[in-house]
Amino acid sequence: MPSDASPGHGSGHSSAAAAAIVTAGMVVIGDEILSGRTKDRNVGFVADCLTAVGIDLKEVRIVSDDEDAIVEAVNALRARFTYVFTSGGIGPTHDDITADSIAKAFGVGIDHDPRAIEILKTHYAGRVELNEARLRMARIPFGADLILNKVSGAPGFRIGNVHVMAGVPSVLQAMMDEILPTLQTGTRLLSESVDAPFGEGRIATPLGAIQKANPDTIIGSYPYNLDGRFGTNIVVRARDPERLALVAAEVAELVEAMRAAS
Amino acid sequence: MPSDASPGHGSGHSSAAAAAIVTAGMVVIGDEILSGRTKDRNVGFVADCLTAVGIDLKEVRIVSDDEDAIVEAVNALRARFTYVFTSGGIGPTHDDITADSIAKAFGVGIDHDPRAIEILKTHYAGRVELNEARLRMARIPFGADLILNKVSGAPGFRIGNVHVMAGVPSVLQAMMDEILPTLQTGTRLLSESVDAPFGEGRIATPLGAIQKANPDTIIGSYPYNLDGRFGTNIVVRARDPERLALVAAEVAELVEAMRAAS
Repeated sequence: MPSDASPGHGSGHSSAAAAAIVTAGMVVIGDEILSGRTKDRNVGFVADCLTAVGIDLKEVRIVSDDEDAIVEAVNALRARFTYVFTSGGIGPTHDDITADSIAKAFGVGIDHDPRAIEILKTHYAGRVELNEARLRMARIPFGADLILNKVSGAPGFRIGNVHVMAGVPSVLQAMMDEILPTLQTGTRLLSESVDAPFGEGRIATPLGAIQKANPDTIIGSYPYNLDGRFGTNIVVRARDPERLALVAAEVAELVEAMRAAS
Repeated sequence: MPSDASPGHGSGHSSAAAAAIVTAGMVVIGDEILSGRTKDRNVGFVADCLTAVGIDLKEVRIVSDDEDAIVEAVNALRARFTYVFTSGGIGPTHDDITADSIAKAFGVGIDHDPRAIEILKTHYAGRVELNEARLRMARIPFGADLILNKVSGAPGFRIGNVHVMAGVPSVLQAMMDEILPTLQTGTRLLSESVDAPFGEGRIATPLGAIQKANPDTIIGSYPYNLDGRFGTNIVVRARDPERLALVAAEVAELVEAMRAAS
């Protein structure tokens, strides 16, 4: 859609300009995602969580287990968005370099954090030894708050507007449960979907006219191919429920008219 | 892993320095991915394809349907990597702005391309009208080559080192089939996996020692949680098959020794 109609850009659409816009970026850290060996499931989960509370996820970067790459991505996104969320690289092994990279990105020191050591001691008590490797998971940048985690014990952390989480989906999800209540939420971008039983090409021109006439809404058109048949899912988004209902109804009428005509 | 052991960084590991390193970046374009409405399947597919032919995918950026965001991401990655691949935003609707954004990123003009018009005419012949909206899919930046597509007709395109593809997975996959034979491929990064039936914490220290002693290999450690039980998948990567076999065997012996000891 035209940039002047996209959320997070105040100018060009009055109602969203009046609404509270909270934005976010995400950094996924891990060679296993970039090699294809592991298929990421965290972006979709975080996106769903943020959308549900009215935070607009604006950009995601997937980077390798490389300090320079992590520092660059985190610094770029934390300067630009209200919040940043990271996943991956906070375990006990040599390739878990996220905590040290975040400390470098913020230009602060890092060391074993007494609060984190206590959490690990309690978690491992009577089960396994809190060895040197496991202690690495207590390395937290100076000035960071811990993000608790009921699944694996080892905490994530929040420093500035950056939330550092694990890459294992069950652990990341437990951390998001802890984080969500602490976030400033925006005016939720509501949406309504209209399914068109034909390809985008037939409806694109009148749909574009509706978008142009309603710049305070965001109309997305998502083609799909089901058993060789093309269809189009049209999603209308707006922060004002009345405007959403009006424009979605207009789109539904258009689709019905075109379906009847075919 | 430490950056000096990651592919694409020549210094620090002799065998990979001698090998041909071909790198890639990917830009996923679409608000529907960032909102969580659509779960991306293209990153994993492209990652698998590139890994299979020895191209290292180094960074992925997921950006919204916003011209400035697309231009910034494409220009950042095309300057840095051998190839860039994009998905999404080349359909007929008002929110499909990828082709125009790519033209802007390269500072070239864009117009309806006679070759693309011919392809669309042939594809739609006798079925549907080649209306103004569908003609938008023939807008190709000046100087670009077309990427054919057996599924939906509408072509993608290649300009400089950037390959522009559709977002619908079946169409993107058809376009990748056309692109792959044209790419310069690198010395494939081979891998062997060793499963450890325990968490990372137990094996992290000796595993780190093996990585340190073998900087020409990349040892990744990927924890998982299966029915509440933690396990670790250890993946050894190397471009030299003999070195890979040696180091993977060393890791397997370590895992077996620790398993026997528990």
